This record gives sequence, structure tokens and C-alpha cells, in this order.
Amino acid sequence: MSKVETTSFEDCLQGLIKSLEASSYEDAVLQISGLHPGEVARLLEAVPPKNRTELWNRIDSSTQGDILIEFSDDVQVQLLLEMDVESIVKATEGMDMDDLADIVPNLPESALHNLLLTLDHKHRDHLKQVLSYDEDSAGGLMNTDIITVRSDVSVSTVIRYLRLLKEMPVDTDQVFVVDRSFNYVGSVHISTLLTNEADQNILPLINLDSAKPILATTPEKKVANLFEQRNLISAPVIDENNQLIGRITIDDVVDVIRDEAEHSVMSMAGLDEEDDVFAPVMEITKRRSIWLGVNLVTAFIAVFFIGIFKATIEQKVALAILMPVVASMGGVAGTQTLILVTRGIATGRITISNLKLLLTKEVAVGFLNGFFWAAVVALVTYVWFEDVTLSLVISLAIIANLLIAAFSGALLPLILVRMKIDPALAGGVILTTITDVIGFVAFLGLASLAI
Amino acid sequence: MSKVETTSFEDCLQGLIKSLEASSYEDAVLQISGLHPGEVARLLEAVPPKNRTELWNRIDSSTQGDILIEFSDDVQVQLLLEMDVESIVKATEGMDMDDLADIVPNLPESALHNLLLTLDHKHRDHLKQVLSYDEDSAGGLMNTDIITVRSDVSVSTVIRYLRLLKEMPVDTDQVFVVDRSFNYVGSVHISTLLTNEADQNILPLINLDSAKPILATTPEKKVANLFEQRNLISAPVIDENNQLIGRITIDDVVDVIRDEAEHSVMSMAGLDEEDDVFAPVMEITKRRSIWLGVNLVTAFIAVFFIGIFKATIEQKVALAILMPVVASMGGVAGTQTLILVTRGIATGRITISNLKLLLTKEVAVGFLNGFFWAAVVALVTYVWFEDVTLSLVISLAIIANLLIAAFSGALLPLILVRMKIDPALAGGVILTTITDVIGFVAFLGLASLAI
Repeated sequence: MSKVETTSFEDCLQGLIKSLEASSYEDAVLQISGLHPGEVARLLEAVPPKNRTELWNRIDSSTQGDILIEFSDDVQVQLLLEMDVESIVKATEGMDMDDLADIVPNLPESALHNLLLTLDHKHRDHLKQVLSYDEDSAGGLMNTDIITVRSDVSVSTVIRYLRLLKEMPVDTDQVFVVDRSFNYVGSVHISTLLTNEADQNILPLINLDSAKPILATTPEKKVANLFEQRNLISAPVIDENNQLIGRITIDDVVDVIRDEAEHSVMSMAGLDEEDDVFAPVMEITKRRSIWLGVNLVTAFIAVFFIGIFKATIEQKVALAILMPVVASMGGVAGTQTLILVTRGIATGRITISNLKLLLTKEVAVGFLNGFFWAAVVALVTYVWFEDVTLSLVISLAIIANLLIAAFSGALLPLILVRMKIDPALAGGVILTTITDVIGFVAFLGLASLAI
Repeated sequence: MSKVETTSFEDCLQGLIKSLEASSYEDAVLQISGLHPGEVARLLEAVPPKNRTELWNRIDSSTQGDILIEFSDDVQVQLLLEMDVESIVKATEGMDMDDLADIVPNLPESALHNLLLTLDHKHRDHLKQVLSYDEDSAGGLMNTDIITVRSDVSVSTVIRYLRLLKEMPVDTDQVFVVDRSFNYVGSVHISTLLTNEADQNILPLINLDSAKPILATTPEKKVANLFEQRNLISAPVIDENNQLIGRITIDDVVDVIRDEAEHSVMSMAGLDEEDDVFAPVMEITKRRSIWLGVNLVTAFIAVFFIGIFKATIEQKVALAILMPVVASMGGVAGTQTLILVTRGIATGRITISNLKLLLTKEVAVGFLNGFFWAAVVALVTYVWFEDVTLSLVISLAIIANLLIAAFSGALLPLILVRMKIDPALAGGVILTTITDVIGFVAFLGLASLAI
């Protein structure tokens, strides 16, 4: 009766690109119809903007809304610009308030105005509430479509009420119990409603443990960690007065987890995970350019220090040949510590309380590995250049650089976090500048003394 | 009635470390009691192994099981070694089959034997089934605790059946419909059971769309993408004969997503996300050492090429001073493309079908940025060394290196994937070796011709 997953995403994409190359858009639309909005979004992101727009204009506006919310920011803005006010309003009809809130900042003024007119008083209030919280907080992440019941009713009353509703919001795994003034009391899992007798009272079924409410101002990263550590499907959100104002569902949390992880990889190369991979060449060039510029500055800082030892290098060119080895060993070792600590901070494993212990370990590891690899490099250097002084100098420089690398790699992320700078973005650049400078100065400086 | 989340994870960790430093283990155990197993696991991972073991031995074995499954591999193995057979058997009692299957490979022989004896025939079969699939496949990820019904019954019959069960397995959002021979037919969302009338027949309520079954041999990355794109909470798993054999739940998928993301960051520095951050210093040193060794080899490959141009550098030491700039610009630009493509492949946005387009874009970006920054570097070089030839040579070398960098960054991940090598692990090392060599050879080679 049901069909197994057989056609893979790659096959879909290949078929789609073939149709687009042949300009048979009807064929292309046919191929993506019936797919889940998330899959359509992924496919559209994987084709060039020109084709993307052509295809987008052929998709029914009633389904455009579900697809819109699945796009990365860059592509969402791009496609919203292609739509007229009427289609935007139609596409956003019936959207969850958290999804709508995500789109609102990208909407043209006129579309926003018309959109607000279509909402009834209650929904407008809900939207305003979601928008009043930071986009990256629990409040910005929440849906407002919650089912609430009182604590003094029976299972059968609740079921009767649910049958009247005819349908529950997507991903409803619990109904929330509130008091007369909408203060949050607790939650009842809907499976509990199904496994208990009809005349059972709700009060003892209330789950106090797993459904602790989340304050609307909680940062989304903390929300994600809570969901992950407690294996939650949904969680109630309250305001500072303990009023129940919404719920967060796992699908939105999965997006947070994925985005956060994606961000930490991409920003290591100065990339933005929300950028369109197929944006116009000039656009991409400009975006990448900044990162190259920053790195150029750091490269010139490092080579400025080489310049200081020009006379020493003139005396012994072998120094010039070997100096990248010292810098690179420091960079590699330091990056290991840096990434470890940066990820540890992000996942909560490393905080200021266990940093001292970690720092000691990392420095010890840096020293041991420095010692070992310094010996190896000294040997290779001796075989290559038959120069004992040079071998000695390079091994001392490597030990020094690996020690500094461990220190910097462990402390830098915490200092950056304190300064409210993203360590995933800035950490690598600063660290390799440090290890380059230390590597060059230690090696060439020691050489200038010894030679 | 219920308490808001107030004490943060950092506070918990700080308190815990304070107690541990004062060796008041009773205090420490008190602090972690009442926390979710996932939180306890995170806390234990954040303290040194010595304290961890002390604390672990004081935790009741009935709750140890839930905590065990939340650990990273390294820590799990470590703590299992500390436990006697009896505690292991007690801790693993009543565990989900997928969780048990994860622990089995880490168990000592004797514990495994005793554990199997405690399982009844049915559960032993289930465990065998889960273990028969690859750990990283849908089959290895599935639970076997499914609720099944027939298609010819009414809502009230199903509810009566559920009431007899008294309790549903965790994260049950749907019951599965099977035929007489346990072939998968479809699923019914439990919220549907609550919102429909008691005499309603099940058949028309079957959800054919969102509950397409997943084949047990599907790789877990694909499962994660499916869950993400379709916002699933759970999904049925079938074998090759369409027999329903289990279900995958979102909590396990969240772990897959997090692990995959964590892996892609950590492996960029040759780290393993399953490693204990606080492992003994010698252990960590050994693990890191391999990566440093690999990088040392590549560093020597790069400087070997500098060595070829020893005579040229002797003539003009400015070359030695500036050559890291050329290499570094290529490395930075190439890494941007590399990370973009590696992540694109992992998330499915980039496949062989749209690679040609991407390659063209990236090379164009490389050329434009190469041209622009080459001009900047040429200017700085001229101001510093007042040497037109040097300025010209360095700008040509930068353009060449950025072009090669874009090419390599785009093609390398796909080549590595074809060769079944993890591009996140090997990509960066290979790429920077290429850009270092090209940078040095282009710069020094052109200089040797021009000077």
C-alpha cells in the first residue's frame, strides 16, 4: 500500500537539473510536486538562481508558504522579492506564528501591511508577541498554537474537547494545564490520555518533571541543549509572569541544532551558512573578499616579523626554507586545542569552572608533543643541512611554539566569548597569527643569537 | 506548581566541581540527583576521570543505564570497565534495544553473557535483529518497541487496546497498521485517535504520506536528512520483505545530526568527537600526535619545494619574507571553497549534477578575488621593497594560487568521497599542501625567471 523510500535526493536533483537545462519547466514542476516542502526547498537551493525563480513562479502560492520557511535566509529574501503582494499574503496564510515571525523581517513594507490586515485580532496579537522577543530566543522560536485544559477535568472531558477541535496542531505531544488566569501548571502527554480510563481525573496525570516550562527570554542554544539532554518533543514557553504563551517543537529545535553546527564549521572559513551557494559571482566575490582581506592583514603582520630578521636569513638561507615548518606545527597543534575548546563551550562541556584543569592538560600535551616532534624535526634538519646548531634552534623553536599554541588555543575561545566575539569565526585567524609570529620570531630570533 | 528552569548548566558544573575538589562525594551525588540522565552524562564528561569514576560508583545502578547511553563512546567504555557484571546487568535492564545494541560492543565478554541470560526470548531476538544491521544504518538506530494495530478496527477498539497497555513507549506519536503477516500498511497518528469519534474506522485515518517506511539498510545520514526535511517525530522501519521491524525516534536522530555536525568540525583538526576531553595526558598526546605527524610530512613536502629555489632566495631575501603571504592567501581562499563544498555534499545541496556550475562560479570568484588582492599585495610590496619586478611576480603568483585553490577546493571533496575518504578529515591537509606548494613554486619559480 505504501511506497518505500527509493528515489534518492541525488536522483531528484539530477532529474530536475536535466529538465531545467532543457527549459522544460512543466516537467520540472511535475518532478517536485508531491515532495515535502523541506525537500523542495533543498532542491531549489541546489539550482542556479535564474532557474530557481522560474520554477518558483510556477509553484502554487498555497504551497509556497511551507517551502518559504524552509529556505536559508539569503534564498528566502531573494524569492520574496520576486513575489507580488497578493502571492505573499496567500503564501503566508495560516502559517505558524514562529514561521511568520521569521519571514516578517524580510518582507517588503507593502506586503507586511496587507499581511497584517488578513490576520484576525488574536493572531495579530500572537505575531506581535513572538516578534517582541529576540529571534534567537525561546520566544522567537515558539508557536502559539497550544491546547490548554484545566486541572479539574476528567480524561473523557479532554477527549471530548479534542474531538470538537477535530484536529491538533502539528507535533502536539502534550496538552498544557493552566489555571483560571492562564498561569502554567503542568502538562499532560497525549499518550497518557489514551492509556488512562475515561473517568480518570487529569490532576494526577500532570507531568511535572519533563515539562518544566522555558522562559521566553532563554537563548535558543540553551533551548536546544535542553531538548537534546532531555529528549523533548515539545516544551511550554512562559513569560516572566508564569503565563503560558506558547510552545517550542522539536522540528524548530532540530533546525537550531543544525544551523548552530553548520555555523561553527562555515564561520571557520568566514562563510555564512545562510548564504546562497549559487549567488551571483560578484556577490560571492565581495562576501569572500572580506575574509581574504582580514587574512592578508594577519599574513603581513607575520611576515613583518620575518623582515626583522632579514640579515640573519641572508647569512643562512636554510632558515627561510625551514621557517614554515615551525609556524605550521604551531598552527596545527593550536587549532586542535582551539577547536576542542570552542566546541566544548558550545556544547556546554567546557566552562570557566573546568578550564584550569583543561589548560594544564593541553599545555602538558603541547609540551610532550612539542618535545617528540622537535626531536624528529631536528633529525630531519640534520640529515638535510648537516648543521647541529640549526637542528637545535629549530627544535627549541618548535617546543616554544607548541607551548604557546596550547595556551592560546585554550584561552582564546573563552576570552573571545567574554568579549562577545564568535570564537568559531575569529578564533582560527587570531590563533594562526599568534603561532605564525611566535614560530617565526622564536626560530629566527634564536638563530640570530646562535649563528 | 512547577519550577522554571533557573539554575543553568554552568552553575551545576561549578557547584559539582567545588564539591569534588572538597572530596565531598555525598554532596556531589545529591547535586546531580533529579537531573535528566543526559544532563548527568554531560556533567560527568566535564569532570576529570578520577572524580568521574568516584561519582559513578555512587550512582544507583538502576539509573546508571539511562546515563550510560548518553555518554560519548570513550567515556562509556571507561565507565563500563569500572563496573562489575552484576551492576552492568542491572543497569541495562529494560533498556531500549537500539540503546542496548550501542552498548553491546563495549561490554566485557562475561557481562554480555549474563546480560543475554536476563533477556527473554523475544527481546533476545529483537537485540539480535538490531545488531544484525550496521550501527550507522536505520536498522542499527531503531527501537523495537512498536505498537501495531489492524486496519479493520475502530478508534474505540484501539483506545481500549491502549488502555490495556497502560503505557506507551517513549516518543510514541503514531501507532502502526500492519496486515495479518506483519507487512507494513501505514500509520495512524495518536492525535488522530483523540480527535476522531469513537466509532470511526481506522482505515481512512491511515496516514500514507508522512509515514513512508524506511528500509533498515538506509544509512543514518539519509535518515537524518529525511527527518529534517519532513519534520518527523518517528518513522517506521521495514526489512527488505516489507515486514515492520521497528521505529526510529527523533531523539536518536537528533544525536545523529549533532554527532555528524560535531564530527565535521572536529575532524578538520584530526580530532574525534567521541574522545574524552579529560583523558590521561599520555593518551591525548598519542592521539594528537598522529595528526601532527601527518601535517609535518606535508610541511616538509612544501618546504622541499622552497629548497629547490635556494639560490634564488640567496639572491633576494625579500622572496623569503614574502612567500608565506602567497601560500596563506591560497590556503584561505581554497579552504573557503573546500568547506562550502564539503558541507554542501553532507547536507545534500551539492552533488555531481550541479558541480560543473559550482566549479565555474568558484573559479570565477577565485580569479576576481585573486586579481583584486594581487593588486593590493603588489602595492604593499612596492611600498615595502621598492621593486617593480617583485611586485609583478608576487601578484601573478597570487592569481595563479587562487585559481588552483578554487579548483582544488571544489574538486577535492568529491574525489575524496569517491575514494571513500572522509573529506572533512583529509580535505584541509591535502588542500593546504597543494596551495603551499603552488604558492611557493609559482612565486619562487617566477622570481627565478625574472631576476
